[in-house]
Amino acid sequence: MEITKKVLEGNVRTVSRLIRNLEDGVPEARDTLKKIFHHTGKAHVIGFTGSPGAGKSTLIDAMITEVRKTGKTVGVLLVDPSSPFTGGAILGDRIRMQRHSTDPGVFVRSLATRGALGGLSKAVGNAIHILDAMGKDYVIVETVGTGQQEVEIINHSHTVIVVAIPGMGDEIQAIKAGILEIADIFVINKADRDGAGKLYQELMYMLNMADGFPGGWRPPIIKTENMFDTDSFRKSLIELVDTIDQHYKNLVDNNLLGNRIRRKATLELTEALHSAILDPVLTKLVESGEMTQMADKVLNKTADPYTLAEEIAKKYLREL
Amino acid sequence: MEITKKVLEGNVRTVSRLIRNLEDGVPEARDTLKKIFHHTGKAHVIGFTGSPGAGKSTLIDAMITEVRKTGKTVGVLLVDPSSPFTGGAILGDRIRMQRHSTDPGVFVRSLATRGALGGLSKAVGNAIHILDAMGKDYVIVETVGTGQQEVEIINHSHTVIVVAIPGMGDEIQAIKAGILEIADIFVINKADRDGAGKLYQELMYMLNMADGFPGGWRPPIIKTENMFDTDSFRKSLIELVDTIDQHYKNLVDNNLLGNRIRRKATLELTEALHSAILDPVLTKLVESGEMTQMADKVLNKTADPYTLAEEIAKKYLREL
Repeated sequence: MEITKKVLEGNVRTVSRLIRNLEDGVPEARDTLKKIFHHTGKAHVIGFTGSPGAGKSTLIDAMITEVRKTGKTVGVLLVDPSSPFTGGAILGDRIRMQRHSTDPGVFVRSLATRGALGGLSKAVGNAIHILDAMGKDYVIVETVGTGQQEVEIINHSHTVIVVAIPGMGDEIQAIKAGILEIADIFVINKADRDGAGKLYQELMYMLNMADGFPGGWRPPIIKTENMFDTDSFRKSLIELVDTIDQHYKNLVDNNLLGNRIRRKATLELTEALHSAILDPVLTKLVESGEMTQMADKVLNKTADPYTLAEEIAKKYLREL
Repeated sequence: MEITKKVLEGNVRTVSRLIRNLEDGVPEARDTLKKIFHHTGKAHVIGFTGSPGAGKSTLIDAMITEVRKTGKTVGVLLVDPSSPFTGGAILGDRIRMQRHSTDPGVFVRSLATRGALGGLSKAVGNAIHILDAMGKDYVIVETVGTGQQEVEIINHSHTVIVVAIPGMGDEIQAIKAGILEIADIFVINKADRDGAGKLYQELMYMLNMADGFPGGWRPPIIKTENMFDTDSFRKSLIELVDTIDQHYKNLVDNNLLGNRIRRKATLELTEALHSAILDPVLTKLVESGEMTQMADKVLNKTADPYTLAEEIAKKYLREL
C-alpha cells in the first residue's frame, strides 16, 4: 500500500525501482501494478517513431521545454529495441535529454534492456501505466523504426508522430510500407535541408491517395528546422504541441479514443496471457529437465519439435 | 507424400509454395515439415549480420559465385525484420543476388514478411529446415542488426559472421554491446576505406580482452574490399569460405556442433510451444468474443489485464 501511495504521489525513486522490478519479473511489482491500474487512463500517450538520425530525441527534448512552460508535466520513455549498431548518436541526444530530470515535472527513463521479461512491448506498456499513475499529463514514448516489435510498442500510444528527414531516398518507400496507417502527425525535421520540398510533396501526394480518414483527421505535416534557440524552431514546436492536443481532442470528439485504448487493452491482454499461460509451462519444462530431454530427441531426430509441442499442449492444456 | 518427395528432390516451385504455406499457417504445410524433419541436419547454416550498408548482400552474392565453383550448392534466406527505413539499398543488392536463381544449385528467398504467423524467427527456422532437406550444402541467412529478434534468427546458425565497415564510429560500441558473444568470424568490409586499420586494431584489442574461446576458436578478422572482379577481392572471398569451413570443422572436432544444434532445437521447441499452447487459447478467446469482453473490463477499469489473464490461465491450464 505504501508503495502504491508513493507511486501515485510521483516519488521518483519508488517509480524507478518499480519499473526495474517489473522488468526483472519481481512478483510484488506486478501486485503493485494491479493496484495502481484503476488510477491510470488520464495521461495523453504520444508515440514518436522514425528512422535513426531523424532527430526524434532532440525534438522531444525541445518539446519538453515548451510543454513545461504551460505547467503541464511530462514522462518520457526512450525505447531502443533495434540494432545497437545505430545506438551511438541516439545515446548522445538522450543523455542531453536527462538535463530535464532535475525538473520534478519531468521523468525520463530509458528502456533499452534487451532481455526484458516477456518482451519489450510489455515492459513499455507497464511503464506507461506507471508514469500515467504518477500523474504525468503527457507520456512520450520514443522508438526507432517500424519493425513488428516497434509497431507493437507504438500501439500503446493515443497519438503517433512519424518523424522524417529530407535526403534519405528511401523514406517515402518506408512510410508507404507500413507507417501511413499508424501516423497521426508527420514531422519533416531538418526542413532547411535540400529535398524537404520534395519530401513534403510526396507525403501530400500519399495522403491525397488515401481513402478518407477516421474522424476526418487528415495527418498534418509539420516542418521543423531543428535549429535550437531560434524563433522559427520554437514556433514549429508550439505548432507541434498544439497539433498533438488537437489530435487528442479529435479522438475524444469522434469517440475514437476508445478504439485506441481498446487496441492497447487487447495488446496488453495478449501479453499478459503470454506471461500467465506460456511462461509457467516453459519454466516447468526447463526446471523438470523435460526441455533438455525434448531437445535430445530433436537432436537425435527421433522426434520433431512440432509433434513434441503438441504432446505438451495435450498434457497441460484443458479442452478448449 | 508426393510433396515431401518433391522437396527432397529440390523442386523449386514446391519448396517456394511450402515456405509460403508455412508462413500462412496452412496445417498441411506443418505436416510436410514434420515428415521432412528427419531428413534435415546435413547443411552448414551460416548467419550474416551487421549494420545496414555494411555490404552483406554484396558479399554473399560474391561468395555464392566462389562456392559454386567448388560444385557445392547454396540456399539463401534474406531476412529483414528491422525498419523498412533502411530497406532501400538492401533491396537493390538483393535484387542483384537474384541473378543466381537461374542456377539450379542456388535457391534465394526473401523472408521480409512482417506478419509471419508465430514470428519471423520461427519462419526462418522452418525455411532453413526446408532448404536443408532439399539438399543445399550451405544455407546462408542474412539479417540486419542485433535486436532481440535478430539474435534469435541468428541463433539458427552454426557459424555467425559479423560484417563491419570502417568509418562508423559506433560500430565497435555496438559489437561490444552484444555481438562479441555470437560472432565466429568478423569481416571488415570496404577495408580500403579510411579507418579500416583503426577498426581492425579495436577488434583485435577486444578479442585480446576476451576470457578464452570455446574450442580455442578465436574469431578471425577477414578484410574484404568489395571491389568486384579484382583478384584481391576474389582472394579475400576464398579466404572467407575457407574460414567458414574451418569453423565448422572446429565445431565438429571439439564436440561443439551439438551445442549449436541444441540451442537451435531449444529455440524451435519454444516457438513450437507458443504455436501449440498460446495460439489456440488466443484464437478461442477471440472467436468466442471473450477477448472483447475482457477488453471492455479493462477499458471500464473494472479489471486489470494481469488478473484477467491469470483467470484465463486457471480455466485452460491444468495443474503443472
